[in-house]
Amino acid sequence: KINADRLWDSLMEMAKIGPGVAGGNNRQTVTDEDAEGRALFQKWCEDAGMTMGVDTMGTMFMRREGTDPDALPVYVGSHLDTQPTGGKYDGVLGVLGGLEIIRTMNDLGIKTKHPIVVTNWTNEEGTRFAPAMLASGVFAGMHTQDWAYAKTDAEGKTFGDELARIGWKGDEEVGARKMHAFFELHIEQGPILEAEGVDIGVVTHGQGLSWTQITVTGKDAHTGSTPMPMRKNAGLCMARILDLVDEIAWSHAPHAVGAAGHIDVYPNSRNVIPGKVVFTVDFRSPDLAVIEDMEAKLRDGAEQIADTMGMEIAFEKVGGFDPVEFDEGCVRAVRNAAERLGLSHMDIISGAGHDACWINRVAPTAMVMCPCVDGLSHNEAEEITKEWAEAGANVLMHAVIETAEI
Amino acid sequence: KINADRLWDSLMEMAKIGPGVAGGNNRQTVTDEDAEGRALFQKWCEDAGMTMGVDTMGTMFMRREGTDPDALPVYVGSHLDTQPTGGKYDGVLGVLGGLEIIRTMNDLGIKTKHPIVVTNWTNEEGTRFAPAMLASGVFAGMHTQDWAYAKTDAEGKTFGDELARIGWKGDEEVGARKMHAFFELHIEQGPILEAEGVDIGVVTHGQGLSWTQITVTGKDAHTGSTPMPMRKNAGLCMARILDLVDEIAWSHAPHAVGAAGHIDVYPNSRNVIPGKVVFTVDFRSPDLAVIEDMEAKLRDGAEQIADTMGMEIAFEKVGGFDPVEFDEGCVRAVRNAAERLGLSHMDIISGAGHDACWINRVAPTAMVMCPCVDGLSHNEAEEITKEWAEAGANVLMHAVIETAEI
Ligand SMILES: NC(=O)NCCC(=O)O
Ligand SMILES: NC(=O)NCCC(=O)O
Repeated sequence: KINADRLWDSLMEMAKIGPGVAGGNNRQTVTDEDAEGRALFQKWCEDAGMTMGVDTMGTMFMRREGTDPDALPVYVGSHLDTQPTGGKYDGVLGVLGGLEIIRTMNDLGIKTKHPIVVTNWTNEEGTRFAPAMLASGVFAGMHTQDWAYAKTDAEGKTFGDELARIGWKGDEEVGARKMHAFFELHIEQGPILEAEGVDIGVVTHGQGLSWTQITVTGKDAHTGSTPMPMRKNAGLCMARILDLVDEIAWSHAPHAVGAAGHIDVYPNSRNVIPGKVVFTVDFRSPDLAVIEDMEAKLRDGAEQIADTMGMEIAFEKVGGFDPVEFDEGCVRAVRNAAERLGLSHMDIISGAGHDACWINRVAPTAMVMCPCVDGLSHNEAEEITKEWAEAGANVLMHAVIETAEI
Repeated sequence: KINADRLWDSLMEMAKIGPGVAGGNNRQTVTDEDAEGRALFQKWCEDAGMTMGVDTMGTMFMRREGTDPDALPVYVGSHLDTQPTGGKYDGVLGVLGGLEIIRTMNDLGIKTKHPIVVTNWTNEEGTRFAPAMLASGVFAGMHTQDWAYAKTDAEGKTFGDELARIGWKGDEEVGARKMHAFFELHIEQGPILEAEGVDIGVVTHGQGLSWTQITVTGKDAHTGSTPMPMRKNAGLCMARILDLVDEIAWSHAPHAVGAAGHIDVYPNSRNVIPGKVVFTVDFRSPDLAVIEDMEAKLRDGAEQIADTMGMEIAFEKVGGFDPVEFDEGCVRAVRNAAERLGLSHMDIISGAGHDACWINRVAPTAMVMCPCVDGLSHNEAEEITKEWAEAGANVLMHAVIETAEI
């Protein structure tokens, strides 16, 4: 069994880096705060006897040797980057939970045949640089590294430049590592486990995602002196599309969700009718056909709204992944671990995207989920209990030990 | 008659300061660019033999002496500040048109009994610091200076600090000056004069305005893992209110307009359901009862939308002025001038707010309007012809000479 107090202390220590404004964190990817968090994690891992590799996407691989020099490592991990107003556990629990199982195995003198590597994937959140799960996506061969390097943030800085600036562009070729398996512990970020009173979610599937960035172009003009019939109000056109997004998502409920989290209005002046609005629609479903149907309905419907209003509209897919089915063997290892530990568990579909969703394409993969209070995440008020964290990390450890073989 | 080429050259020279990104200007109030524009205007005025006074709101008063030392001055002018993506003529024509009539009177050796003062009012646009017409509003006793100084921009800088920083906080008490009359030349910013093929708008009235800033508070949460029924999507709530704003404005068309130009979404991340949206609704009408009706319908309707969606909503009136009826005598002077010059003219209601709307409360006031291409303003593509500017400035000069008495 892991040391719950030690895990919790590490979580609280990490949360001091890049504090938010309301008790959570703002430790966005490849910022100075990210660099500080990485350095702390590196120190902790080296104190636990691990050695570091860093790839050219900045992903950190902290290795504990196995007894068989030829055995492929078992990987665990998640991400240390956060949303601009994010919680203390989203991603961090999976990374520091990975560290905790190593610390525990050291304490107990447990040696495994396969090495174990605790990973911190760069830019999982995708908030500063879209898309999400950027480094694991390059690792899995979904994107080229050049494409990822060229991604820009709201200030026009590129991911590649910022990664170099913070000093975490490593030298390892991305994706060169081969994995025996990958396990990711994560908070659910949804309400199901807490509502069901269940300790552990055995993640069998992950929802697919589609991010469509929409640019509506009307005509900026004076809000006072421009007669109503002459207006091309791009903000109003966006408003109608947002209603359509909601309608489309509900039409597939409970098997789909949809919303727009990102909205930029230009020139954003009280007395100027918006001439341009750029916003991103986020659709998700465990069913690829549903995602495709929602995308098609959005394009058709939004085009019709824009046409009727005399606006121009452009669509760009800025992120997406297909629904995922995790590896049967790894899923079984997670379920077995929960059984063995006497923890209540249920199969669950991940509502969020995770690095595990990409890694599943190149290695046998599964996820362990623990509840979070009110299902709330991507909010500084995100909360979990020490007991939930402990249960999750214990399941992670037992699944890893089974897979890495004593 | 004024020198149209000289006026045009000055307009083009001023437009080089704070250039926009698409041929217009970004010379927002109390920025470094504003200071540069002020200095150029000051130099031109001093070259024309005028002397400067600056009040503690930064408004510039450039004086040409009259022949009667006891006569109150006739004031002309407008503003040199622009929208973030503004045109080259909105406001600037009224200031440099004022300078041009002084230059012409110098050339022709015309002396007037009353002094003439060309004015550059600070922060007319209200885009960086709401409300609009801030300095003329303090001058007219509508706001206190302390209230104006405390206004903040999007970065939290105060108007008072920024005014001091750029070095244009003068020493004259605001509103201490008494005026014989005030005339403002301005582009129409609407389509009527051009559509009617008329040279001059004799502005008899100004629309009233109401700015309501609305804050909708929902709950920021994960766009993927939060089930549809658990969402409190403040962005969606705003979308529905924007539709209501449009509906309310149309219900009073053609006697009202409405839109939201300013929209800020928090935390504005692609995978976070907006937890908070702040936006400003701009309603206008020449009829006070209509404005009050629109405000009431907005509050009731928006509250109902927010209630239904389980959101909190707060309203703050951040700007407003009642409809204006300009001074009969000054309006007649403008109409007479157009007649005398053989220019086609029509009575018109100003769709936009102007410094003249506030000054009308403390001095006999009127406005001269000239057409602008496609009625477009608050857009970098704002355009007028040299002939329209010439006609407007000639009418201004003749109205001023009639009022200031030779
Ligand atoms: N787990 C998580 O919040 N990942 C961010 C990517 C997503 O939006 O699902
Ligand atoms: N003339 C002008 O654009 N003034 C700005 C204030 C307003 O929004 O009407």
